[in-house]
Amino acid sequence: MTDSSSFVRADGRHGLEMRPVRITRGFTTNPAGSVLVEFGNTRVMCTASVEERIPRFKLGSGEGWLTAEYSMLPAATHERMPRESMRGKVKGRTHEISRLVGRSLRAAIDLSQLGENTIAIDCDVLQADGGTRTAAITGAYVALADAVAELKRRGVLTGQPLRQPVAAVSVGLIDGRVCLDLPYEEDSRAEVDMNVIMTDSGQFVEVQGTGEAGTFSREQMNELLDAAEIGCRQLFEAQAAALAE
Amino acid sequence: MTDSSSFVRADGRHGLEMRPVRITRGFTTNPAGSVLVEFGNTRVMCTASVEERIPRFKLGSGEGWLTAEYSMLPAATHERMPRESMRGKVKGRTHEISRLVGRSLRAAIDLSQLGENTIAIDCDVLQADGGTRTAAITGAYVALADAVAELKRRGVLTGQPLRQPVAAVSVGLIDGRVCLDLPYEEDSRAEVDMNVIMTDSGQFVEVQGTGEAGTFSREQMNELLDAAEIGCRQLFEAQAAALAE
Amino acid sequence: MTDSSSFVRADGRHGLEMRPVRITRGFTTNPAGSVLVEFGNTRVMCTASVEERIPRFKLGSGEGWLTAEYSMLPAATHERMPRESMRGKVKGRTHEISRLVGRSLRAAIDLSQLGENTIAIDCDVLQADGGTRTAAITGAYVALADAVAELKRRGVLTGQPLRQPVAAVSVGLIDGRVCLDLPYEEDSRAEVDMNVIMTDSGQFVEVQGTGEAGTFSREQMNELLDAAEIGCRQLFEAQAAALAE
Amino acid sequence: MTDSSSFVRADGRHGLEMRPVRITRGFTTNPAGSVLVEFGNTRVMCTASVEERIPRFKLGSGEGWLTAEYSMLPAATHERMPRESMRGKVKGRTHEISRLVGRSLRAAIDLSQLGENTIAIDCDVLQADGGTRTAAITGAYVALADAVAELKRRGVLTGQPLRQPVAAVSVGLIDGRVCLDLPYEEDSRAEVDMNVIMTDSGQFVEVQGTGEAGTFSREQMNELLDAAEIGCRQLFEAQAAALAE
Amino acid sequence: MTDSSSFVRADGRHGLEMRPVRITRGFTTNPAGSVLVEFGNTRVMCTASVEERIPRFKLGSGEGWLTAEYSMLPAATHERMPRESMRGKVKGRTHEISRLVGRSLRAAIDLSQLGENTIAIDCDVLQADGGTRTAAITGAYVALADAVAELKRRGVLTGQPLRQPVAAVSVGLIDGRVCLDLPYEEDSRAEVDMNVIMTDSGQFVEVQGTGEAGTFSREQMNELLDAAEIGCRQLFEAQAAALAE
Amino acid sequence: MTDSSSFVRADGRHGLEMRPVRITRGFTTNPAGSVLVEFGNTRVMCTASVEERIPRFKLGSGEGWLTAEYSMLPAATHERMPRESMRGKVKGRTHEISRLVGRSLRAAIDLSQLGENTIAIDCDVLQADGGTRTAAITGAYVALADAVAELKRRGVLTGQPLRQPVAAVSVGLIDGRVCLDLPYEEDSRAEVDMNVIMTDSGQFVEVQGTGEAGTFSREQMNELLDAAEIGCRQLFEAQAAALAE
Repeated sequence: MTDSSSFVRADGRHGLEMRPVRITRGFTTNPAGSVLVEFGNTRVMCTASVEERIPRFKLGSGEGWLTAEYSMLPAATHERMPRESMRGKVKGRTHEISRLVGRSLRAAIDLSQLGENTIAIDCDVLQADGGTRTAAITGAYVALADAVAELKRRGVLTGQPLRQPVAAVSVGLIDGRVCLDLPYEEDSRAEVDMNVIMTDSGQFVEVQGTGEAGTFSREQMNELLDAAEIGCRQLFEAQAAALAE
Repeated sequence: MTDSSSFVRADGRHGLEMRPVRITRGFTTNPAGSVLVEFGNTRVMCTASVEERIPRFKLGSGEGWLTAEYSMLPAATHERMPRESMRGKVKGRTHEISRLVGRSLRAAIDLSQLGENTIAIDCDVLQADGGTRTAAITGAYVALADAVAELKRRGVLTGQPLRQPVAAVSVGLIDGRVCLDLPYEEDSRAEVDMNVIMTDSGQFVEVQGTGEAGTFSREQMNELLDAAEIGCRQLFEAQAAALAE
Repeated sequence: MTDSSSFVRADGRHGLEMRPVRITRGFTTNPAGSVLVEFGNTRVMCTASVEERIPRFKLGSGEGWLTAEYSMLPAATHERMPRESMRGKVKGRTHEISRLVGRSLRAAIDLSQLGENTIAIDCDVLQADGGTRTAAITGAYVALADAVAELKRRGVLTGQPLRQPVAAVSVGLIDGRVCLDLPYEEDSRAEVDMNVIMTDSGQFVEVQGTGEAGTFSREQMNELLDAAEIGCRQLFEAQAAALAE
Repeated sequence: MTDSSSFVRADGRHGLEMRPVRITRGFTTNPAGSVLVEFGNTRVMCTASVEERIPRFKLGSGEGWLTAEYSMLPAATHERMPRESMRGKVKGRTHEISRLVGRSLRAAIDLSQLGENTIAIDCDVLQADGGTRTAAITGAYVALADAVAELKRRGVLTGQPLRQPVAAVSVGLIDGRVCLDLPYEEDSRAEVDMNVIMTDSGQFVEVQGTGEAGTFSREQMNELLDAAEIGCRQLFEAQAAALAE
Repeated sequence: MTDSSSFVRADGRHGLEMRPVRITRGFTTNPAGSVLVEFGNTRVMCTASVEERIPRFKLGSGEGWLTAEYSMLPAATHERMPRESMRGKVKGRTHEISRLVGRSLRAAIDLSQLGENTIAIDCDVLQADGGTRTAAITGAYVALADAVAELKRRGVLTGQPLRQPVAAVSVGLIDGRVCLDLPYEEDSRAEVDMNVIMTDSGQFVEVQGTGEAGTFSREQMNELLDAAEIGCRQLFEAQAAALAE
Repeated sequence: MTDSSSFVRADGRHGLEMRPVRITRGFTTNPAGSVLVEFGNTRVMCTASVEERIPRFKLGSGEGWLTAEYSMLPAATHERMPRESMRGKVKGRTHEISRLVGRSLRAAIDLSQLGENTIAIDCDVLQADGGTRTAAITGAYVALADAVAELKRRGVLTGQPLRQPVAAVSVGLIDGRVCLDLPYEEDSRAEVDMNVIMTDSGQFVEVQGTGEAGTFSREQMNELLDAAEIGCRQLFEAQAAALAE
């Protein structure tokens, strides 16, 4: 195993160092929760809106629902990308991330305490520099917490639907070395790319590891998970600090 | 004619007063020009991206092109609106405004000085409180000026494609009185709603007046245009100030 | 100001002269109202159909609704255009005109007198030679009047939903001179193009002026509006004559 | 076998009688051929436009192509039907008829004599009262003949692509009796409905017989084909008379 | 008339000989009926699923409905074809065949005996070698019979909705000679192609004859129908044998 | 840790036992490789087709490409599901699995040895009983191996693009116990569901673990991976046996 603190990455970080993380609450005022989350140059606007209805498959369940949509603004990337609404269809990648965000945030909430309400999470990437999905999940948790608090303030909710903080980080193998929180430059050339979603009690919500340009051994998998735990711990602190303000 | 300074609006302004206007350059870093424009609570991210190609209908013309897309984030409005990419089609309103923004900005630029490049304007509404299309045009001009400057710096352009500043403002009749720069609360109950796009030499680029809930006389039309000229003059000052920074 | 009667246009008209206008009622027999309107070579079939339901956003309002769709047959233009149904999406221009026709005709009608019925206006351009949207609005008013009369005959309506005639005309600046009712040849090279929708009491319903290839001064705007009023007066006469038959 | 002349149909015709057929050439002026065809109250605008290109699958073949699109205006039927362009997709019935019209008209033409041109047939139903597809084919032949003549006049074509007249008629079994040229009232309750496309030498181009609400014997099939031949003979005369004008 | 038994086809058959037909019931287990039908190398999976609802236009009729969808797997043909779900729209050919299968199978069933249930027929072509639509209809009848039996077993149906066996076969003219049950190699170069759907009492349900590359006389039509009757008789035997197992 | 061999599952298996696996080569004959793979009642048709072109983003790379599409036949599941081609859009789940299959199979192949060819993998689920994506990947490898062999036989390929076998299996936590190869009944109530894609040298290609209804500890993750390794070893044997036939 490589010692991840013994090398310096292109942006000056050592292997297990996160980029600066900033979480700004109340970024916009219309949604019940609205957060700008930044992982270095990656900037995602995460909102949580409340809709007083539930999808058809939840009718009669007595439970609420949480759904999520992820999208990138066309000018978020270095090269402008065509707008999905104009193409008339959503790319597979977008669908996949939207579903991941939804699953991850549902781990943070007790649907049976939501009443017949739907919380709609929107994660819109204003600027992309790698790790947009993990930033989205991390920021969306804070927006969700704010939305729940708002619903309780309004008296819409009497129970406590919020179960536990959820955060996410990317890890990868670059030139055989474990790196935490990959920016675009690393992400695009990583041999292995892994997104890890955790709860603050150290449980996994989701682990997605992909050998984009190579495969990985059980030992490397363990190193990657170790690194992800380090990153998530910092993210839980940043979430807690933001929510304490 | 009503004296527009003799009454006070719900937000404390008199009839011919603009909301506070803020123009933030360099809002994101990937596009050649990136601006956050605010008209009160209306906040639009305007970017100008350069693509080194031209659409088919311009091939062989020796000219460049400028295109624009306008969109609202789902949580920009008070009630969350379905995402157009998920619906699989773009609403008529979105199409209409995108086309308006494109036509308006083309008045600011000499396409024959662009080379075979396309400037893609994207206006994404982060928070909507009325006047999103006029804020979009006003901010997009600044993003366009930044993109042109950037192209000249890079040596891509040798000529001077920028012709003249373009700005836009809404005016309307509320309870029979002329009001400048309508927030959502006024916009939704205006008898007449007019969007005026001007150049800084006082020429009109486009005038779109609609009797949403009533009709309007020639005299009222003149009052509305007078009000719009007052608003646009302030916007040209705000644009110049931002570009001077 | 140019004297608009002192020059002769390509088709022999002077500046403020309309093309021959013809309005044929009962063009087809299935819809409640069916009109063929001709502005010179521009020919539009306008129908008004009655549907005994209202859109969701009107439920419970006690009011009816009026909606409109505009479309061009593929062979209406000189070069055949692809059919929008085959492309699977509607062009921005089509959306924009459909919305304009709907707004304009709603000014002709008192929705609260319609009962829970929807009037669906369809304007299908059989032959296009400029001014298709203004011909559509002018013809659709007659189809609407016929549909309302039919509804009253059938006893579906007891009140009087028809408020006032609405007509529309295009004006433009060609080589700096104001021209009324532009055919395609002029429309495609106009510096400024304006569509004016009026009621027969001389009020404006909508004014859309666009500097397609130039800008326009306040003085030119006034000349254009003067010309439009002349055109609309003739159209109200043609509508009244057709309805008197 | 029933004697088809011994009974009277709802509209006063005997079994083997066509509705009045009218073919108006030069209905519009932009397409190379433009015809309004009427079978009683069924009215279809048929145009033939020339495009100086061929579809990809014909590249290098040295041949031209003929394609067709059929569509119904929304207000053509008694109850208004949603516009296919707005629904975003074309119905199976529309596809099916478009393909039938294309196949039928290709029997009228020698593609090897067309040069690398495509003839685009458009059949737009202005008013529907049964038999729209057969009227469309019958009228489209005349539009095609006009388009070919126009191409020869312009010198685009030197050969003679027109091979033979093609016409189409519907026949059906109503209450067990053979009827020719069904209007909507009969079509909707026919036990068997058959569309027959023929050349003027008495050959079949296509036969489509459907037991909509029943099946049919070989003997009935023969009676239906006999009736269709009677109808087509009249249509060839109407086409010839129209083209002789 | 050619003697159809006096020549040998590319695959060794004489003119009026069918390819080997195999019908495998219980091909999959989830649908109420599931059949693999093979006409030579053409292999189609036909299923009949029961849905306890009826489409809107049948509400209140007291009847059930039967609907059908036909599709080809992308790798069914020699050259892989793009998947229709990925293209976002269904081809005209697919629509046309789906509608044909639905109409044909509705002739086999008494909708008034179905209760308010819909039978959904799915015909998915696993391997295509000509005659996919006729194999689909022939196999779908067996799946339908199994589904009806299953519904009766479950007690959902008390009446007897099955009316009569329905089968289908293709016939064509190849080099002027009548051939039965065309494989792809013949189908693609046939002058005339005809699909005939019959009941086991010898009645026609549907006849679709197309002069793909030529026309056909009344005499040829009769020879083609004779051949189709020979083919269908064999198919009814194969269906009966499969259902007897 | 639970002893996974000490309990019996609903279908009689112990925790670490696979369902019977069958791999049938040459299932259809048109594609270069065609395999039917069965994991118990889950049955997937996997084909590998060769297209002599590469996607645009690979032009000039000198490499080939491999793409994959996954789809479920509408009657594959217990309740029939709407066909995606008819809905006009592909579900997120379908997109996600298609992308997973493509990534996984690209690990089995050296694109630089493919020439400018694309291998298109199609996985169509004929019958679904859990684990369709893992069966698809496992079967698709065999189809790919056959397609490569076929290309070499034809002389299209001279190098050896096949790098290593790839197989996939699902594991999960059911009532807190690790289970291998989940059928639908278990999959739908698993607390944690993990799909593991491996090479036959024991490296991971992809790991996707999801806490569908719960979270999971690092220890549970390790148990799940141990189980997956056991399953994959059996699958590599089944692939090798099939390819040896």
